[in-house]
Amino acid sequence: MSLNLQTHTEHFTNPLYLESGRILEPYDITYETYGTLNDAKSNVIVICHALTGSHHAAGVYEDDNKSGWWDGLIGSGKAIDTDKYFVICSNVIGSCFGSTGPMSMQHPHHQEYRYKFPVVSIKDMVKAQRILFDRLDIHRVEAIVGGSMGGMQALQFAIHYPNFANKIISLAATHATQAWAIAFNKVAQESILKDPDFKQGYYDPEVIKEQGLSGMAVGRMAGHISFLSPESMREKFAREYKLTDGLYELFGKFQVESYLEYNGYNFSKWFDPLTYLYITKAINIYDLARGFDSLGEALKRVTANLHLISFKNDVLFKNFEMQELAQELTSIGNTNHTYIDIDSDYGHDAFLVELDKFDTYIKDILNG
Amino acid sequence: MSLNLQTHTEHFTNPLYLESGRILEPYDITYETYGTLNDAKSNVIVICHALTGSHHAAGVYEDDNKSGWWDGLIGSGKAIDTDKYFVICSNVIGSCFGSTGPMSMQHPHHQEYRYKFPVVSIKDMVKAQRILFDRLDIHRVEAIVGGSMGGMQALQFAIHYPNFANKIISLAATHATQAWAIAFNKVAQESILKDPDFKQGYYDPEVIKEQGLSGMAVGRMAGHISFLSPESMREKFAREYKLTDGLYELFGKFQVESYLEYNGYNFSKWFDPLTYLYITKAINIYDLARGFDSLGEALKRVTANLHLISFKNDVLFKNFEMQELAQELTSIGNTNHTYIDIDSDYGHDAFLVELDKFDTYIKDILNG
Repeated sequence: MSLNLQTHTEHFTNPLYLESGRILEPYDITYETYGTLNDAKSNVIVICHALTGSHHAAGVYEDDNKSGWWDGLIGSGKAIDTDKYFVICSNVIGSCFGSTGPMSMQHPHHQEYRYKFPVVSIKDMVKAQRILFDRLDIHRVEAIVGGSMGGMQALQFAIHYPNFANKIISLAATHATQAWAIAFNKVAQESILKDPDFKQGYYDPEVIKEQGLSGMAVGRMAGHISFLSPESMREKFAREYKLTDGLYELFGKFQVESYLEYNGYNFSKWFDPLTYLYITKAINIYDLARGFDSLGEALKRVTANLHLISFKNDVLFKNFEMQELAQELTSIGNTNHTYIDIDSDYGHDAFLVELDKFDTYIKDILNG
Repeated sequence: MSLNLQTHTEHFTNPLYLESGRILEPYDITYETYGTLNDAKSNVIVICHALTGSHHAAGVYEDDNKSGWWDGLIGSGKAIDTDKYFVICSNVIGSCFGSTGPMSMQHPHHQEYRYKFPVVSIKDMVKAQRILFDRLDIHRVEAIVGGSMGGMQALQFAIHYPNFANKIISLAATHATQAWAIAFNKVAQESILKDPDFKQGYYDPEVIKEQGLSGMAVGRMAGHISFLSPESMREKFAREYKLTDGLYELFGKFQVESYLEYNGYNFSKWFDPLTYLYITKAINIYDLARGFDSLGEALKRVTANLHLISFKNDVLFKNFEMQELAQELTSIGNTNHTYIDIDSDYGHDAFLVELDKFDTYIKDILNG
């Protein structure tokens, strides 16, 4: 069967009340769907994307050759089977792929928000999605699945909309962003801010698209370190040196250096730097316990069947953080959750790359 | 007894033949000594410093209030007892604290070398020290001790000058720099290079000293991540937010962010950026096996009593790298080495900070 990929943008004129007390009004949410909604509207699966992800989670656009970021997981006959489920993935509020973010036009000024954009939180991202689903007349879903920042959203759904999903699957995430991850984000933020071409937020987005922004490139290089692991980098690059470069040339390069350069500079052409500042901020302030007396109190709200998946060598969100979450669930008497730690050397990006290590597990959860 | 701190600079007019095939001529080496050389010259301990370290390993200068980087370990009655030993620590070739480096004047032009400075290796640093000791009429020493890049130097001594030291102690180092550590260095290098104030290496050092260099500050922030660990950052900073900042302010800061900013920008005022490029290059190309058929072949040259110390949560040079070295020694039949992995959550900087976890061990080694 066909994937039935569809992309839409919904426009909302009612204010979105943000956790900060500020409002976003009006706003758009761009989303993508795969599969077909059944008559009972009972076959919906929500996918939540990570920091630099988008609503394009599966399939290939006609004018493109790159498939969606979880294409190996979502599709006909795959773990998230589009023959059976109607899958929705929306671009988060604050991002730069169609939903309203810092480079959107601020109504009614017809100028980009830039620094006037309010700080949004993971909770705000989830709230906006909930409003989108309301618009689509979807009031309960079969499952919510996400990794990294997507896994944070899945957990926020579990706490703030406890009756919305039957099953929640959170991969490679945490209950609250720890200092280590904040530190990596800091390097990227500082690197962006200090780039003179960033022009204190008043850069020309067209110039960025064409030339990239070296500050963001450098920041992304730091990000790539946190997405891999000492083990996977060694496996991938060893100490291979670029053949054409001399070992004693100051600018001679190891393969790992070329990899970081290529990915860093390439990234800086397709991702908006202000958006990077705002989304990393959302990740930094993420804390499931905020607004509750404790994490345990927050977790008492969960009624969905909750599944936690960590990766053994995730360097960004350490597996012990997910373990703490599982332990807290157990300690408050929640018997409706599972936790597995997947044996992987890959690092954080395992949730995007080593699908064969958990796709059957996700299929089994969804099947019952 | 007094520390008997003395600082000297020796000038060498003979060329230093570098691993690259290039030469350095003339060159200076600045070094510091503590304690008193006995008549037999048999009580010498050599200390090797790390990336941003210097010859100032112990004691306090008259006009300063900051003690040397290993002051807790070196001194009267301490693990490296200056009542007993004559301790020498020299600033490595390529550094910026008195020994010849990229910002030294190139003879006879009376202009800084800058990019004309040759790439030096850890082996070159060791060779230059060996020549210094010759000048000082010291031909055999009791021990060589170093951590991180200092630990690399200690190991290079063991292989290239097998008859020079009775005992070698290498902490928090590796047998060859792996892709993960190279990646962290890459972020710093790229960040320096892309800073317009770096002026392609033709910056004004006086301006840097006064204003710092934001590119180096950002790069150093990435460095600080690699010097700590997820566990120690959590212990140190938790998710504490700066009291005066609002959580939903885009530029509101977590304590860990303030820490990185403070240390990054401060560092960029006292360390020379070209030197950072050259010394990280030396670390990147460090590989004990270079010039040999294998690591085992290199290690067959070792005759000193060799002691390897790793730290369990060292994120920069993983403890398994030191384990590999120990295993290789065992597999070639070396029975004259020890290896311990110290239980520490601190991370790489444990070798500078958690002295109480290994100072007795070092004392015992030195005492025989």
